[in-house]
Amino acid sequence: MKKLVGNLMYGQSGGPTSVINSSAYGVITEAKRQNEFIKDVYIMKHGIEGALNENLIKITEDDNENVELLKYTPGSAFGSVRHKLPDFREDDSKYVRLLYLFRKYNIRYFLYNGGNDSMDTCSKIADYMDTIDYDVRIIGIPKTIDNDLPFTDHTPGFGSAAKFISNTIMEIYYDMLAYPKGKVTIVEIMGRHAGWLTASSALANLTGYGPDLVYLPEVPFSIERFKEDVKEVYAKKKQCLVAISEGVSNEDGVFISSSSGLKDAFGHFQLGGVASKLAQTVSNDLGISSRSVEFGSTQRAASHIQSLTDVNEAIQVGIEAVKGIVDGKHNSMVVIKRTSDEPYEVSYSFHDLRECANVEKKVPASMINKAGNGVTKAFIDYALPLIQGENDNKYKDGLQQFAKFR
Amino acid sequence: MKKLVGNLMYGQSGGPTSVINSSAYGVITEAKRQNEFIKDVYIMKHGIEGALNENLIKITEDDNENVELLKYTPGSAFGSVRHKLPDFREDDSKYVRLLYLFRKYNIRYFLYNGGNDSMDTCSKIADYMDTIDYDVRIIGIPKTIDNDLPFTDHTPGFGSAAKFISNTIMEIYYDMLAYPKGKVTIVEIMGRHAGWLTASSALANLTGYGPDLVYLPEVPFSIERFKEDVKEVYAKKKQCLVAISEGVSNEDGVFISSSSGLKDAFGHFQLGGVASKLAQTVSNDLGISSRSVEFGSTQRAASHIQSLTDVNEAIQVGIEAVKGIVDGKHNSMVVIKRTSDEPYEVSYSFHDLRECANVEKKVPASMINKAGNGVTKAFIDYALPLIQGENDNKYKDGLQQFAKFR
Repeated sequence: MKKLVGNLMYGQSGGPTSVINSSAYGVITEAKRQNEFIKDVYIMKHGIEGALNENLIKITEDDNENVELLKYTPGSAFGSVRHKLPDFREDDSKYVRLLYLFRKYNIRYFLYNGGNDSMDTCSKIADYMDTIDYDVRIIGIPKTIDNDLPFTDHTPGFGSAAKFISNTIMEIYYDMLAYPKGKVTIVEIMGRHAGWLTASSALANLTGYGPDLVYLPEVPFSIERFKEDVKEVYAKKKQCLVAISEGVSNEDGVFISSSSGLKDAFGHFQLGGVASKLAQTVSNDLGISSRSVEFGSTQRAASHIQSLTDVNEAIQVGIEAVKGIVDGKHNSMVVIKRTSDEPYEVSYSFHDLRECANVEKKVPASMINKAGNGVTKAFIDYALPLIQGENDNKYKDGLQQFAKFR
Repeated sequence: MKKLVGNLMYGQSGGPTSVINSSAYGVITEAKRQNEFIKDVYIMKHGIEGALNENLIKITEDDNENVELLKYTPGSAFGSVRHKLPDFREDDSKYVRLLYLFRKYNIRYFLYNGGNDSMDTCSKIADYMDTIDYDVRIIGIPKTIDNDLPFTDHTPGFGSAAKFISNTIMEIYYDMLAYPKGKVTIVEIMGRHAGWLTASSALANLTGYGPDLVYLPEVPFSIERFKEDVKEVYAKKKQCLVAISEGVSNEDGVFISSSSGLKDAFGHFQLGGVASKLAQTVSNDLGISSRSVEFGSTQRAASHIQSLTDVNEAIQVGIEAVKGIVDGKHNSMVVIKRTSDEPYEVSYSFHDLRECANVEKKVPASMINKAGNGVTKAFIDYALPLIQGENDNKYKDGLQQFAKFR
């Protein structure tokens, strides 16, 4: 394998997670350790758009304090983007521009941190560069709270979102118990097509304060069956907590909440509002007082309750990406393999990037109960190790401290 | 002052907070220390309704572990209630029942933990008992995330809710910065008539990640002026974060969000939905992409981000209530006095319960900016000390541990 010496370019893309910046921390710190091969680290501001616009940050010693804070910072510290690249065989203008900048900045290592759509971007760039006489290696670093990337046991970002969701569901449940006759509380959780996050609410059942009903997008949703389920739980317990994915759809695949009809840049329907819709249904049709809770962006940004396991793994995928790319890995995505259940242990390897792009890994049938309104022990065994440990968040005057780059 | 020897009865009432159980911890532990005067502690399940139904828990040594967990437990560990007592001069049946139970259980100390409505209940019971030849002392212990009780510098519960809100607003703001062109994000915060909680979102401005606009119920709300404000911020920053109270109303005092028309047991309109209504307005009328976030019950239940200052003060008001009642205090509420700003220091005393009931303390004009869309330094100086310190929450397997009583 030919040894490359040059600079590294890193960017973040897609929806933020509360630990994507931990991966940036891993990349930046490992790049420093690999200074025989990597001279400078350039960060694209707002992902690929920052690259195309030559909107780059060169990391220096002055950034040390902020680099340290990356481990506690949610969102995308360097900005994110949703930008779909065309097929370069049809329109190579953006690829030519990228190549120009790679040459200009002597970029030999390109790392792109994101979910499904970002792996598509990353893979396209790798495929294009393979047609060109310019040595550059390209690696994808996984992140997504949705946990829907294939070939990896799970994705960095999922564990922290799952920890926020399960702990907050516990609090909402315990709060609901305050009154002898409770309400039907319907909590809407992110996840278009994959129900991993919604399923994670069921971790709270280990404490006795978890959801009574869990609806994932993997199971066709019937409003009639939902009403029957709620009626049954409420008759028994005089209260009912429902966790439902924003992405549930009916037998015909129509989203229950797709009323807005708006699509994002990738052609995905903008979702949201299913909980409030169903709360109205419960109030009107069942005559039971009902309310909805929508966590919104809080669930992907709740740095104040990160899973330490997730933070550490997010750092490690950054480190492994840099080690791998220096060692010759290319057109690959870092993946996490679970090597042991008890104790929970993982190792890291790489998988062909092309196979990772645009594939959504869904919750398998073995993790969903027969009634389609809850999860099985297989899911709990899978997800519980991912929420372990609490990060030592940095508060100053009672408020968190976040990294601030130029 | 005649020394009373007998049993103590304690109950929780009204909307839970994340630290009302810390006050229960203070009461139970101090009652033990006062064992010369207080023999047993009886807890009413679901407040006054539990007393009337003789649904009581006698605290024993077996409860020690759960008593310890009260400091980390949100909601109302013993159940809450919204129950308005009639004027005893018109209908004394419930008071006669209470007196019967006080005699039966030899209750000489009665402590009721709640907000405005609960102080009304507590004060009525005290007034009735004063007409009867039975020695019992009655004290109110303040709690409310709304911070709207009079004669106390602030109320236990407010600091923790303010800490959750300000830190979560920071996360939402930082998350929003991920994209070069952001959205208008409208966050709806609890508070019917008093804007303390909504104002607390502005603490996040100390970090640079706070709300651009803050609307409190103390200022008549104009949708036209709101649109102008948002337009101006968005033109400058390409994003805008709005914190708005669920209780904002127009010049005529009509709630912006009172569309449901439902009232609770105290005749208060059930609020909620103002943020989603305004997000639609921004999208439709200004043509700017907008979304809403509603924290819902999470903001009063977020035990995972309690303010340690708030927890300690909540414990202390419980302790002071027991010390005071043994010393002869009666028909009073414990109040917190701020004795020093730098360093922040408080002392505890008592105020006539009748004057505390049914009065709502609002955010004063000096804490609201001239434009009516933000707060002043006076508010920040007031609120910042209340969110200081982090509690050492008890996690087991990544999930919080809550007290569980029979």
